[in-house]
Parts: sequence; structure tokens; C-alpha cells
Amino acid sequence: MSTTPDIIGLNFIDGKRVGENSTVLYSVDAVTKQRLAQAFVVASVSEVEAAVKAAQKAYPLFRNISSKKRAEFLDVIAQELEALGDEFIKVAVQETALPLARIQGELLRTSNQMRLFATVLRRGDFYGARIDTAQPQRAPLPKPDLRTYNIGLGPVAVFGASNFPLAFSVAGGDTASALAAGCPVVVKAHPGHLYTSEYVAGAICKAVERCQLPSGTFNMVFGEIETGEALVLNPAIKAVGFTGSLRAGRAICDLAARRPEPIPVFAEMSSINPVVVLPNALDVRGDVIALQLANSITVGCGQFCTQPGLILAIKSPELDLFIENLAKQISEKDAQTMLNSGVLQNYEMGVARLEIHPSVTLLAKGRESANSGSAMLFKADFKVLAEGDAIVQEEVFGPLSIIVEVEDKDQLTLAISKLRGQLTGTLLAEPEDLKTSAILITQLEEKVGRIILNGYPTGVEVCDAMVHGGPYPATSDSRGTSVGTLAIERYLRPVCYQDYPDEVLPEPLKNSNPLGLRRLVNGIQTEIAI
Amino acid sequence: MSTTPDIIGLNFIDGKRVGENSTVLYSVDAVTKQRLAQAFVVASVSEVEAAVKAAQKAYPLFRNISSKKRAEFLDVIAQELEALGDEFIKVAVQETALPLARIQGELLRTSNQMRLFATVLRRGDFYGARIDTAQPQRAPLPKPDLRTYNIGLGPVAVFGASNFPLAFSVAGGDTASALAAGCPVVVKAHPGHLYTSEYVAGAICKAVERCQLPSGTFNMVFGEIETGEALVLNPAIKAVGFTGSLRAGRAICDLAARRPEPIPVFAEMSSINPVVVLPNALDVRGDVIALQLANSITVGCGQFCTQPGLILAIKSPELDLFIENLAKQISEKDAQTMLNSGVLQNYEMGVARLEIHPSVTLLAKGRESANSGSAMLFKADFKVLAEGDAIVQEEVFGPLSIIVEVEDKDQLTLAISKLRGQLTGTLLAEPEDLKTSAILITQLEEKVGRIILNGYPTGVEVCDAMVHGGPYPATSDSRGTSVGTLAIERYLRPVCYQDYPDEVLPEPLKNSNPLGLRRLVNGIQTEIAI
Repeated sequence: MSTTPDIIGLNFIDGKRVGENSTVLYSVDAVTKQRLAQAFVVASVSEVEAAVKAAQKAYPLFRNISSKKRAEFLDVIAQELEALGDEFIKVAVQETALPLARIQGELLRTSNQMRLFATVLRRGDFYGARIDTAQPQRAPLPKPDLRTYNIGLGPVAVFGASNFPLAFSVAGGDTASALAAGCPVVVKAHPGHLYTSEYVAGAICKAVERCQLPSGTFNMVFGEIETGEALVLNPAIKAVGFTGSLRAGRAICDLAARRPEPIPVFAEMSSINPVVVLPNALDVRGDVIALQLANSITVGCGQFCTQPGLILAIKSPELDLFIENLAKQISEKDAQTMLNSGVLQNYEMGVARLEIHPSVTLLAKGRESANSGSAMLFKADFKVLAEGDAIVQEEVFGPLSIIVEVEDKDQLTLAISKLRGQLTGTLLAEPEDLKTSAILITQLEEKVGRIILNGYPTGVEVCDAMVHGGPYPATSDSRGTSVGTLAIERYLRPVCYQDYPDEVLPEPLKNSNPLGLRRLVNGIQTEIAI
Repeated sequence: MSTTPDIIGLNFIDGKRVGENSTVLYSVDAVTKQRLAQAFVVASVSEVEAAVKAAQKAYPLFRNISSKKRAEFLDVIAQELEALGDEFIKVAVQETALPLARIQGELLRTSNQMRLFATVLRRGDFYGARIDTAQPQRAPLPKPDLRTYNIGLGPVAVFGASNFPLAFSVAGGDTASALAAGCPVVVKAHPGHLYTSEYVAGAICKAVERCQLPSGTFNMVFGEIETGEALVLNPAIKAVGFTGSLRAGRAICDLAARRPEPIPVFAEMSSINPVVVLPNALDVRGDVIALQLANSITVGCGQFCTQPGLILAIKSPELDLFIENLAKQISEKDAQTMLNSGVLQNYEMGVARLEIHPSVTLLAKGRESANSGSAMLFKADFKVLAEGDAIVQEEVFGPLSIIVEVEDKDQLTLAISKLRGQLTGTLLAEPEDLKTSAILITQLEEKVGRIILNGYPTGVEVCDAMVHGGPYPATSDSRGTSVGTLAIERYLRPVCYQDYPDEVLPEPLKNSNPLGLRRLVNGIQTEIAI
């Protein structure tokens, strides 16, 4: 709709703020649902095209700057993010209803994530340098000199999530890993936190300027589904990073697969993060587990990709007591404001589907409050899992979990075998349990990206060894992670040089090894020069 | 058709030879086109299902054996392949019309490829082990212990190519890398070399037995398109390796993307392998280049993925002389028997499309012979490339190349920018040329998987630093290679262990580092124990 808003939020394209459209989006206060003042101009078709063109133009320059310079750029982004100030924090809280401390913590997580990728660039192992030197005398044919290293794929489109307006959004893990890889980025701002996105995009653009990088290195457009589709379909986009719902993620995968030139999509979509409570653990510390699990189910109003939505345990009197305990914990949890009306509505629809299902029983409901999400605990019959009914497998995004009781270990194994792919799988177990449960570990390994022992799935550490990925539908490609430094590998591809002279070779492949990399030289890992 | 053939070739499923169907396939003598005696039974729907089930059942066991044991298995496969004997070599020659020496060489390449992957397993870097140790005292939240390594994706479907009946087929790079990764394999035998496939499958099955591995570790089915489709659509198949045409490869990609659970497909499909001849090189050694290039165009009747199908050069009197030379070379080349009638027919159709195109001129045709492929040299107007006409971009599989003359360096840059993704890009250049052509290297890097200087694209070394991949349509995923040890990474995904005790952790992640791996521990690459 054409309007005359107080202030205009324009798109970030090639270092400029532009917006020729009269169509605008508004952000709302997540608590009051009041529309906020600023209008954000939806990018026109030609503006989306211009954003991608800018990224494409920046690519050859940006990917070829030294990894040291790219590391400095990520450090400067971190500084600019931390300099955003109180006004920014206030706006992020207002748009998402997330607590102040959470937003402050998430900002630090986001800036430190940039710094962590800077250390990856300085370490240099992401280059994956491999050298096989020539054997001119080899018979029957001489062996050429072959040297391989990784380069960035090209411009990457990033779609942020609503539940982490900083760490999984404009400057989140997808953007950080793509920029680290040498890929310029075009972000489609999430409509749930437009103000927040504008601040963050501004910070990144300042860093681009301060580091004198090509102006198209980072771009951001405002818009809805059509804008995202145009981005994914643009031939110059070479990969997509997405965090969000299974429906939206799959739609993007399908779109990308239908392009004349299909491109990889890394979509983190849907997980119910099964928690298996084993008999001895129940026996020894069932009450503590009930307390801790109730917290993991409800923290942040359950709005985490790794929220535990399914609990599996073997029938026993201890389990009955545990369920009673857990139900009590859940029933005492306060209702919380959710990220936005859409999220609340989806949560309520998910709850309603469970409530009317003949094989599902409500065990407990937390405190209620207008326009808020209440904690819920359900119980589902084993046959629901055994028969492949989707009701317990579909993620209900919010503070809700479903218990499935099984008769014995064999049924537990069968239940796990029926699970779809997951981000995480958790065992709550005593050493005794583990001795007899090796098969559960093997089973979980095949279903998930991260297996947890005696912890809870919420809380995802940003580090080298993190895997925040997993078989479909947890993600669209289980070989990637969207948290941790391994995320950079999604946006890299190898290029091999055959018989190029040393002076023309890129630094990681030169004889003298000027970057001091560990390289695979003639089959041996070594740091020495050739 | 139901028949009573002399001998029956059955499918290889779970260590048994089975075939309940009455539908059979026959192989033909590639020279005489005579049908060979043995009938090969097309796998029934339930047999395809059984093959995948066997692979699925083998997976937890096979992926969990030590990498040392898996290395031994690959070594035993190599032994069994080399023990196949003269009868086998004779049959492979008969089915493909490839020269005896070529088949003998390809067999060694194939067995050595198995041994090379065995060294990768013994080296252990494919595990990608990463460890971040716990910080229980960290505030505000303790840091858990996180440890990540790579596991095989699950059962892999392999579709071999007709042009390398050994190195890119039943025991080729896709099978070798999948088995190395710990993924059981189901091969669909290529209809162009059924006998050869049967011999090779028998050798692998012997190795499975000798190493006492699960009988479903390797399976092979006979069939046509429907058999392949059933394989790709089976939910237990977790990845696909394919080498062949763009049409078939893209169809498999589309099928895999439409599955309820989409899976990665690594299809190596189509490349015209541009060769750029720069002015000083033309000047100094145009005659030698003409000779060598003519050989690269026609070797093996041009039936190589890396056959140079496009030559780019700047107009000059030297270029005129070079073209004259090259045309003469091509016109003197003998016709050669192609792999099969289908390949010859496709080649002739490709030639016909070029002959009738108004902007394409025939420069030379090699000697002719009945039922054989003659070498061909065409010239196309620059505008064909500039205007994006597919005529020069579509691979014509066979001994054919197209020269495109450009006016100057700018037009050369424009021409390269118009190219689709390629397996290789070659510069023929003197040092002088390189000094002024840095941009060409950057351009080629973005278009191809391997850039070659003063060599020819045919001849793909099997080694650590090889990249036989590239942007679409060269392959379906430029992040993979189908030749060289990096190929293993296509079939691996990371799994993270959080807070598991040392005795439960897999060997690559144990504190004592029993495998002696180089691991990334708390951000530092180290071989020491924790």
C-alpha cells in the first residue's frame, strides 16, 4: 500500500540506501502488537537484481583479498555490532519480546561468532591446501604438478530466522560463514524484526566501508515471499543459507533445485530433539531430570531449534513418578509472550492438533495469560510412533513436549528407528544404562547431528566442534552445520591448478608456504616449504 | 522378453546371485554389434528393494569397523580386480571397443585407486576430528565437552559411465570413495558393459567375503531407466554418485530433489573444456600446439569428460596458420569405433546440428570408416558465444572441437564470461602472455574445477590434489570431485558428541588419540593426546 510513513527504511544495495517501490512493510511491538513508526520499502524486482549484481561484481575482488584482510573485516563487523548501543537493544527487545539480558547475550554471541570465523581465516585450514608435485620422469606418462585449495562459491542469499534476531539473522552464522568463505552476501530481512535488521545491516555496511571492501560485499533487501523467491532464482546467486520452518525451507530447496542451474541450499528447518530417559537415570535422579527437562522445554518460550519436543522412556513405577513430577513442573510455568502473532498462532494450532488426536493425552498445561504461549505436556501412545503417524514427529514450535512410553528396550530401539532426522538426540543415563545401550548411541548417530549425554539440547555452543545440522528434515543437507566454524565449508569449493608457475599460484599453494599452512604434500601432512 | 539364454547373469544382492524376472538385457560386441551370449536378468522391483535393504542392514556394521579394516578391504578389492585375468580383459575390450592397452591400464588405475583410498583411511584425516574440551567453571554457563568426527552418510547408489568401464563404473571412483567413507553401495550396472560389470562385481563380492564384512556391503542390479529410478527413490538410499550425460544426470538430480527426503546427488555430466591459446604461445609454438591439441581432441575417439571441445584465440595471421595446421592434423586422423551405437548416433546428431547452424563452419573432417566416429573441426562466430546460443556450449561427446576467434583481449574476457561451468579450463601461454592475463586465471577459476597451464585437459591424475568437478552443468555440485581422494568427502557428514565419557567415544575422538590423528583441539591443530 502507498503510504507516507514518518521515516523510511530503504534497502541496502551496493553501499547505498535505495527503495523505488511504494509497497512497504511495518514492524510491530511484539507485546502490544502496535505497529511501529518506520516503514520499510519492499525491494522492487530491479532492486533485487541490483543487489545480486552488486554481490556478483564484488565477488572476484572479495574472494581474492587475503584471508588476513578478510579476518580484519570480520573483526571490524564485531566492533560495529557491539557499538550499536542501547537504542538498538531496546528495539530488538521491542520487536521480539525476548528479554533484555537474552538480547544482550545474543549480541555478544553474534559478535564473537564473527571473531571466531576471523580465527578460522587466520588459521588457514579452511583452504584445504593439497599439493602433488610433478614427476616429469614417470613412465608411461609424466605426472603434472597439481595444487588445490578452496575458494568461495559466489554470492550467497541468506534468510534469517525470527527466533534469534541477531545470531541467526542479518549478521548470524550464515552471513558470517559466507563472508569468511569469501562469498558476498544478499540478506532478505526477516519481516519479524525489520528495525533490528536495519541496525545490523548498517553496522556491516560501515565495516565494509571502514575496510575499503567492494561496496557490493554485503546487501540487504526488505520484502516477503516473492522477494525471497526472486533472490533464490537469480542466476548469480550460488548458494542459500536459511533458518526457519520446514514448509518455507523445503519451498526454497524445491525452487533452487528447479533452477536451470541448481544451487545448494542449507536450510535448518525442523527438529523435535528426542530425549531418551534410561531406567537407572530415572531411578537415581528422576526428580532432578524432571526439573531440568521442564526448564529446557520452556526456556525462551520453547522457541529454539533444539527444544526437546519428544521424551522416550521405558514403562516403570519410577517413570510414573517422573511423569507426575514433570507434569507438576510444567503446570507451574508462566506463560510467555512469543516472538510474534504468527508464531503464537502456529503454536496454538499445533496444540489443537494434539488435543484432538485420539492417541494423544494432555498431561499438564502451564499458567495462562492473554496472547501468550503456555507450557504444555502431552503423552502419546507408542503406536503413534510405530505406525509412522506424523502427529508426534512434526515440530510444534513452542514450550511443548510429548512423552512416549515404551514397554521395553526392544520397543525403545524400534521407536528410535522410526524417528525422522534431528538436530540433536539426548540420552539421560547412568553408567549402568550406557553399558547396555551401545545400540542406542549407534542409532542416534544415524538420526542426528549432535548426540548429548546427561545434558539438554537447548544451548548451542559456537565453537569448532559444534554440529548444528542433521538428516532431513532437521536440515536439507546433513553434511553442513549452521553453527560453529565448520559452517564455512558449506560455501567453499575446491579449485585445482595444474602446472602453474609459483609466481602465479595463490599464496596458500606457493612453494615457500608463506601463510605457514599445514598442507597435504605428496600424501603427507606438513608445514614445511617445498 | 522371456528367453532361454545360454547362460544367465543374475543380480548381486546381499552376497547372493538372484533374478526372478523373465526380462533380460544383452550386451553387444562394440565392433561387430553382434549380441553376446549371456543374458542379464533385470532386477525386479522387490529385488531392487532387497538390494537397498541389504545395504541398509550392512551400514551400521560397515561404517563402524575400524578404518584400518576398511583399508584392508579396499586393498583386497584391488587384489581381486587384478586377479580377474585375460578372459575379463578380453570381454571388456569386446564390449567397449577400447584398445587392449587402454583396458589394461584402466584396470591398474582402478585397483590403484582402491589402494589410494586405503591410504586415506590409514592417514585418518577424513575423520575431520575436532575437540573442544569442557570448561565447567565458565560463567554464565559452563561449556560442555564437544567432539566431532565424520561418518558415512548411509547406502549410496552408484551409476557408472560407459566411457570408463572400469575406472568410472562398478569399482570406480564413486564406489571406492563411498566404501572408503563407510557407505555400503548399490550399483546399477551400465547396460553398455554388462559382462565387464559382472566380473567386477564378482571381484568386489569376493573381497567382501574374504574380509568377512556384512554381505550387503556391496550389491549390483541389472536394469534400465526404471531400475535406476527405483534405486534413487528408495528411502534408504542416502546419496547418489553418477557419471554420464547431462540429460540423465539432471533427471536423477530432479528425482532426488523431489523425494520426501531429498538426498545429495553427485553427477558428473557435461563439459566442453575450453582451451585458450594466447598470442605469444601461438607465435612461439603454434605448430606444436596444433599437433598436441589434435591428439587431445581425438585420443580415445574423444570419449573423455575432459575432451577439449572449444578453442578460444585472438585473431592474427599466426592464428590463421595455427588453424590451418590444426585442420590438417584433424583431417589426417583415422576414424575410430565408438563405445556403442548409441554414442555414435549421439555424436552424429551433434555433428549434424553443427553442420546446419548458420554461424558454424566445418573446417576439417578426419578419415571416414563405416560405423565409426570421424574427427571433426568446426569454427563458430563469436556472436554465437556472445549471444548465449547453446550450440557451442553443449557437449558433443566424441572427437570434435570448435574454434571461436575473438577480436581482442576484451572479447576474449567476454567470451569466457559467457561460458557455462566446466571440469577444466586450459591456458596455452608463454610467460609474456601470463603477465597480462591475470584476469583470465581469475575468470577460469570461477568457471571450472581444474585450470591447466600449457597442458591438455585429457588425462586425469588420480591423487590427493585432483579436482574432477566444477560448476553446473559440469557437475551437479561443484563442491565435490569424482576423481582423487577428496571424493570421499561427498559421502561423509559430521556427528558431534556432547559430554560422552572417554570409554564410549569412538576411537578418533578418545583422549589418548589411539589413531595418532592430527586433530583440531581447542582451536589448535595437534597430534598430542588430551
